[in-house]
Amino acid sequence: MVNYRISYTTIKMEALRILLDGLININNEEWNAFTQTIKEEHFHSKTPIIKEGSIANKIYFIKSGLLRTYYLEDGKEITTYFSCEGQFIGTFKSFISQEPSTEILETIEDSILYSISYKALQNLYKEHPKFERLGRLWAEKNYLCIVERAMAMQTKTGKQKYLDFLKNYHKRIVQYAPQHQIASFLGIAPESLSRIRKEISTS
Amino acid sequence: MVNYRISYTTIKMEALRILLDGLININNEEWNAFTQTIKEEHFHSKTPIIKEGSIANKIYFIKSGLLRTYYLEDGKEITTYFSCEGQFIGTFKSFISQEPSTEILETIEDSILYSISYKALQNLYKEHPKFERLGRLWAEKNYLCIVERAMAMQTKTGKQKYLDFLKNYHKRIVQYAPQHQIASFLGIAPESLSRIRKEISTS
Repeated sequence: MVNYRISYTTIKMEALRILLDGLININNEEWNAFTQTIKEEHFHSKTPIIKEGSIANKIYFIKSGLLRTYYLEDGKEITTYFSCEGQFIGTFKSFISQEPSTEILETIEDSILYSISYKALQNLYKEHPKFERLGRLWAEKNYLCIVERAMAMQTKTGKQKYLDFLKNYHKRIVQYAPQHQIASFLGIAPESLSRIRKEISTS
Repeated sequence: MVNYRISYTTIKMEALRILLDGLININNEEWNAFTQTIKEEHFHSKTPIIKEGSIANKIYFIKSGLLRTYYLEDGKEITTYFSCEGQFIGTFKSFISQEPSTEILETIEDSILYSISYKALQNLYKEHPKFERLGRLWAEKNYLCIVERAMAMQTKTGKQKYLDFLKNYHKRIVQYAPQHQIASFLGIAPESLSRIRKEISTS
């Protein structure tokens, strides 16, 4: 039997229901339809779940663990997103366009995920239109996220970007994501990140 | 009486219905609810409809005319989007977050627009959940659009970007949007755009 080192909080299904309920106010029938479409999947750390060039046919809600998305630029990994338990993750562009992914989705830690397939989600939208609202809120959130990231890259200093990261990201991500991945995510050199962290800790 | 120079096709309400129907398959009741929420507005060319720093409380469907969104970078206008009759436009980030806009929405030509307010759209979502699907598709399209633009900026040559523009944008935009606005939209110098256009026309 494979052993997964899950050392942190795991999100119970009931917590997922509370989260969904807060977003779209679902009834028992809708919740049952939703739970029938999701599948629990276990992955070891550093597993590429969606590879570059493959079509993302699933999105994930994280029961436990830590993951990131990244792309390769001249052989260098540029991290584009981090997520931990209680959050969603996927390679969104490939998922909604159903075209080959330019990003890679990879576990940082051993992770347990609830997956939902593209086909199952389209059926869910059709059978229970309430979930269209979830899809809309999710697409809007992803849109804001990418616009804010692009703007921060253009206009903010490395220190500002790191302070925003500390403020806006889950403390599990801040604490456990590797420093060189955080640096590429913020668009700064790993040495600059070390200097900024030192500056902040002594100020 | 103010005179608007509307020289091109105007989109009839029936065409808007066909467009919506193709996206979300609406019935008469839903169509009536939709038409009751929209308002026809007339603008002269070069009118800033949404200003930098104001909250975008409307989005627009273009009945006739040509518009763009742009932002200012060190006093220079960077165009981020063009739209013409039969298409939607707005400063999407401000509209969905209801925070001050960093972009300006401006008419290029005299334009007639159908507007829908943020509040009316939220009511429409609530009363007729079918429109959630429209909101989701719209947010997904905006997401893909911004990701593709960011990727093109990073990876494509000026010529490739211009050829993509010719292929993907409405011929009215290609023909009537000012060259310097197209250049800033493609992230190239106006002189480079002139050279590329000359190259293409002689090849």
